[in-house]
Amino acid sequence: MIDPKLVSKLNSIPDLTLYTAPSDCWAYGSDNSRRHACPDAVVIPHSSQQVETIVQLCYEYSTPIIARGRASGTTGGCVPLYGGIVLSIERLNQICHFDPKNRTMDVEAGVLNSDVQRLAQTEGLFWGPDPSSRDYCTVGGNIACCAAGPRAIKYGTTRENVLGLSAVIGTGEVMRTGVYTTKGVVGYDLTRLIIGSEGTLGIVTKATLKLLPLPTKSIVACAYYSDLLSATQAITRIMGQPVCPSALEFMDRNCLSLIRSNHTDIPPNAKAMLIIAAEGTQKDIDHQINALKAAASFSELIKFEIANNKTEIKKIWQVRKALSPALRKLSPHKINEDIVVPVSKIPELIEHIEQLAKKYQFNIVNFGHAGNGNIHVNILADLNDSKVGPRALECLNSVFDKVLSLKGTLSGEHGVGIEKRDYVLKEIDPIALRLMKQIKSQFDPKSILNPNKLFLSN
Amino acid sequence: MIDPKLVSKLNSIPDLTLYTAPSDCWAYGSDNSRRHACPDAVVIPHSSQQVETIVQLCYEYSTPIIARGRASGTTGGCVPLYGGIVLSIERLNQICHFDPKNRTMDVEAGVLNSDVQRLAQTEGLFWGPDPSSRDYCTVGGNIACCAAGPRAIKYGTTRENVLGLSAVIGTGEVMRTGVYTTKGVVGYDLTRLIIGSEGTLGIVTKATLKLLPLPTKSIVACAYYSDLLSATQAITRIMGQPVCPSALEFMDRNCLSLIRSNHTDIPPNAKAMLIIAAEGTQKDIDHQINALKAAASFSELIKFEIANNKTEIKKIWQVRKALSPALRKLSPHKINEDIVVPVSKIPELIEHIEQLAKKYQFNIVNFGHAGNGNIHVNILADLNDSKVGPRALECLNSVFDKVLSLKGTLSGEHGVGIEKRDYVLKEIDPIALRLMKQIKSQFDPKSILNPNKLFLSN
Repeated sequence: MIDPKLVSKLNSIPDLTLYTAPSDCWAYGSDNSRRHACPDAVVIPHSSQQVETIVQLCYEYSTPIIARGRASGTTGGCVPLYGGIVLSIERLNQICHFDPKNRTMDVEAGVLNSDVQRLAQTEGLFWGPDPSSRDYCTVGGNIACCAAGPRAIKYGTTRENVLGLSAVIGTGEVMRTGVYTTKGVVGYDLTRLIIGSEGTLGIVTKATLKLLPLPTKSIVACAYYSDLLSATQAITRIMGQPVCPSALEFMDRNCLSLIRSNHTDIPPNAKAMLIIAAEGTQKDIDHQINALKAAASFSELIKFEIANNKTEIKKIWQVRKALSPALRKLSPHKINEDIVVPVSKIPELIEHIEQLAKKYQFNIVNFGHAGNGNIHVNILADLNDSKVGPRALECLNSVFDKVLSLKGTLSGEHGVGIEKRDYVLKEIDPIALRLMKQIKSQFDPKSILNPNKLFLSN
Repeated sequence: MIDPKLVSKLNSIPDLTLYTAPSDCWAYGSDNSRRHACPDAVVIPHSSQQVETIVQLCYEYSTPIIARGRASGTTGGCVPLYGGIVLSIERLNQICHFDPKNRTMDVEAGVLNSDVQRLAQTEGLFWGPDPSSRDYCTVGGNIACCAAGPRAIKYGTTRENVLGLSAVIGTGEVMRTGVYTTKGVVGYDLTRLIIGSEGTLGIVTKATLKLLPLPTKSIVACAYYSDLLSATQAITRIMGQPVCPSALEFMDRNCLSLIRSNHTDIPPNAKAMLIIAAEGTQKDIDHQINALKAAASFSELIKFEIANNKTEIKKIWQVRKALSPALRKLSPHKINEDIVVPVSKIPELIEHIEQLAKKYQFNIVNFGHAGNGNIHVNILADLNDSKVGPRALECLNSVFDKVLSLKGTLSGEHGVGIEKRDYVLKEIDPIALRLMKQIKSQFDPKSILNPNKLFLSN
């Protein structure tokens, strides 16, 4: 419950959309983690000034405020589990300035990723971050989670593609940080501190995006291997030569089993598959794919198939993108992790996971952004089933321990939110965690910004 | 003066080199800014454990401690202007682990940039940051300043090429942050917070470097233009197409005048010059240089000269690298700035600087990393001359104001140190500055780590 005086003050802000009826608020209570909590109120500001006023009021009334993009996150990051007001950035949707000569775009945080791409494209440019939710996720959400996607391997994640930003911190003050240029070293890097902080340090209202020249030609190849080790050796070799693929995706044998019935061209003896993409110009694309093919070729390579027309390329990406929904259909309450390990450790990880699958009697399917060692581990278990749930969590815990023992990290791109909060201390050094909490307390002295996400506020 | 009890405790640390005699300490008092202050003591630890013990003692005795790499910085960043102990990292020079399969190298902070490059090269890899001081600057210094150099345009600065690090914070505690993989989003990005913090938040003892595949072929071209505007239009066009140059350097007409006597092949009517470099493989280098040449070509392009053998390439870089020392010979106490403006604003900036040169009657020479808009503005004035100094500073101030009005930044790669400290508030938002100071107070509660650099501690 929030203070009626706060509601009344919010109500008096001109032109602010405010919902307080549970029936109106309900839809703003979930994200793609399938968690849900009905917010006490929802505000939909249409200017950054309104965001400031709202946060100032929340500060005054010590009321939690949870920024929400389009809720495509998978960790419960924007679910108001501890009550409070959800601030939807959907109407902060202005593209403020597009500067093709300097390859930058100033946008409000609620602009969709795909809107940025569409406008950038008119001048032969694009923005690097390319999550599979690009058609309906916001730039603000991309910044909150440091979103990546398959092309991060070549173009970087959100961290490398945002030059500066404005954020309203927990006192309701607005902070401008970063630069408008591709270089800048004056003061501490607060831009990168905000990126990936999941709305716990500030509500991003505007950002200056760094754009890149749009490639004019792309090619995608599928490489099938008779064993897992060779596939990972191929990854190491591909990433060790100068032609960087624009995507390098991996599927394990369980993945292949899953899609085999619909895709008869998968060799029967294939135990692992790589999707290798290249982007460039008409003139250099052949050279690129030849270099990538050479690096991918071993005696264990069963088949290397190049798709170079749009229909075939689309088909391959459809197979890849259909994986997660297909698995969810199979197991609605599955665990979907996005751990990362050094590429050379992928076989050891997958082998360990196969042992765990046997031990705990779960089907576990692995695929992901192999060039970065970022593997989506899908444990097909019903967490809501009281008999299965605890066993599934035990299995997950064991996956995490293995990942960390291999010098990996618990999240490559999904973030912590609530899903991985209890595991953060496994990875983060206690001194670093203490400093993070201290930083949080300065940006947000009353702990009203998305409280208890990433780590417990107290 | 430091407390004799502290000296005695430092003295009792086994195998620690400690200097207290001014004659021994003197050499550790300067950097490349030509500022000097003799430290009260110098310690040369050979392990990160020793660094911890030393900082713990400095914390106990509230004594300033200034980390020092090889002092190639240009802003007085490691000059102990406020007294205290200089900690030289020269003996933290172990390469701890080289992992070519995962393209990483774990090094102690005192390892030289060129030592990293040499070892990486044995496995066909390299580290992105490539300042002109690479032969004698340390990885720790590169991290402290977020060093870049000409190749940053293609491979990024230190920020994009360090995965994780260990730093001893102002309490003497060691903090490990970041990851060992190319992706990772668990917790706040303290790695990037430390990078570029100029030794004010922590003394970096170890780092995990992200390595890249070594290009096997490089080409360098010189493009001469009959006017400045065309040269900057060429920069915009080069950066707006998919083939990224590995360097894109700019020299204005004053630069050309300076080097003309030794380089007879510079066309007499040239008013601006670009050095355009490409790196790749034997198979794609021709395509790259053709694409770059096409983008660089205008009617105002007088001459486009390709150097493709090592001697010619070396000659071009020698001309470029000789510029700064040549200017220093001409004007030992010159002002050398490294401001950045959006590329399309370079003509407006240079024009303004030419007006300032007339107004203040100084010779001002401009060159730099044009692809990033990073211009080294050299005001050839003797700051030590009491008649000239104040006028030079007034001129500089006007340059800074113009830079900021063009949405630029005061430093692209040199940092703030002491040189630009008084100007920081021109650029940094007051709320952001307050947060930076608060962060400083948490990492370094007694303000003993390189105090009064970047901003005044109190």
